[in-house]
Amino acid sequence: MIRMYGFWRSAASFRVRIALNLKGLPYEETMVDIDAGEQYASGYHAMNPQSAVPSVFVDDGPPLTQSLAIVEYLEETHPEPPLLPADARGRARVRSLALLFAADHHPLIVPRVRRYLSEELHVDDAGRTAWIRHWFREGLVQGEARLAGDAATGRFCHGDTPTSADLCLISQVMGARGFQVTTADLPAISRIAENCLAEEAFARALPLRQPGAPASH
Amino acid sequence: MIRMYGFWRSAASFRVRIALNLKGLPYEETMVDIDAGEQYASGYHAMNPQSAVPSVFVDDGPPLTQSLAIVEYLEETHPEPPLLPADARGRARVRSLALLFAADHHPLIVPRVRRYLSEELHVDDAGRTAWIRHWFREGLVQGEARLAGDAATGRFCHGDTPTSADLCLISQVMGARGFQVTTADLPAISRIAENCLAEEAFARALPLRQPGAPASH
Repeated sequence: MIRMYGFWRSAASFRVRIALNLKGLPYEETMVDIDAGEQYASGYHAMNPQSAVPSVFVDDGPPLTQSLAIVEYLEETHPEPPLLPADARGRARVRSLALLFAADHHPLIVPRVRRYLSEELHVDDAGRTAWIRHWFREGLVQGEARLAGDAATGRFCHGDTPTSADLCLISQVMGARGFQVTTADLPAISRIAENCLAEEAFARALPLRQPGAPASH
Repeated sequence: MIRMYGFWRSAASFRVRIALNLKGLPYEETMVDIDAGEQYASGYHAMNPQSAVPSVFVDDGPPLTQSLAIVEYLEETHPEPPLLPADARGRARVRSLALLFAADHHPLIVPRVRRYLSEELHVDDAGRTAWIRHWFREGLVQGEARLAGDAATGRFCHGDTPTSADLCLISQVMGARGFQVTTADLPAISRIAENCLAEEAFARALPLRQPGAPASH
C-alpha cells in the first residue's frame, strides 16, 4: 500500500491524489497540518528536508517528493492508463503546460511566500489576497492563451484523456476559485476544468473532500 | 540546426544551453532583450504566449518551451549522454532536485515578480534585493539539506555525471552569486557547483559569456 503524507489544501497533494486515482493505485494519506506548522516538526523534517508536502512512500525506500517528479515516477512504474502522450513532441507540450501552472505560478502563493509578505514586507491582508489573486489569474490567463485555438487541445489539455497537465490545471483552477478569481472569461480553461471535475478520479481527490477540510463547504 | 530564443541572464536559457552542449547539439541563439521588454513584442508573444524565454525550434514544428520540458525532450530524442539516471528511483530523485531549484525557488525572483513588488507593493530597491537574496539562499539551503549526507550524491547531484538537477543547481548558484548570496557554508552545493563549472559544456553556457552580457564582468 502506498503511504502519502499530504494536506487537504495542498495543490501538490491534490495532483498526486488524482494521479494515484487515475492509475488505480490504492493509497493511505496522513494529513500534515500545514496551518499548524507540522511540516517543521523534527519527525516530518527528517522525512522531507524541504518541509513540503507531499511525501510518498511507495516501498521501503526513501519517500518520493515534488508532485511532478512523483507523477513521472508513477507513469514509469505504472504506465496504464498513460498520463503522458506517446510521442516526444506531445510529452514536451504536456510537460510545458504542467510547468506553466505548477512551476511558474503555484510557487508564488504558497504559505512561506505569504508569510514573507506579511512578516518581512508588512503587506496587509488585502494586499496579500490581491497578490494571491493576481498570480492565480495570470497563470490561468497564460494557460488560456496556450490552450485556446491549439489543435492539440481536446476535451483535456492534450487530446481527450487526462494528462499530467490537467492535474496541474485543475489544482490551479480550484485554488483560484477559493480566492474568488473568475475563470468565466477563459473558455478553454473553464471547459477543461469541468471535464476534469466530471471524472471520479479528480472529484475524489478534491481538497474539500479530504479529512481536515472545512466542513461548511 | 536548433534555433533558440533566449536571454543572456535567463536561468532557464542557461539550463537549456548546458543541456544542448552536453548532448553535443549545435544551436544558434537569438537574444530577446528581457530588460527592454522585447518578450512582450507581438512577434515574440505570438511565438511564446507566456512571453517567456527560452523558445526552442528543433524542427518545423512549434517551439518547445519551459526549460525542464525542453531538457526531457532532448533526453528522449538524443539519449546520449544521458541527463537522467537509468532507474526510475534515480530519475525521481533527479527530477525532484531539479524542481526544488527550478520550480520552488527560481520563479520567485523573475522580472515579473520583481516588478509586482515595486509597482504594486511599493517595495524599495533594498527590500527587493532582500527578497531576491532570501529566496536564492533558501533554495540553496534546502538543496544542501537534501544533497549532503545522501549516498546518492556524488561529484554531481546524482552520481558522478551531470544530470538535469545539476543544470538547475548551477543556474541558481550563479544567480545567487550575482546577488552576493554566500554559498561558502554549503559544502555540497559549493563542491557540485565547482565540478559543474569545470566542465566545458557548463562554462560555455554561462550567462556572462553570452552576447549582451555586461562586458565588465
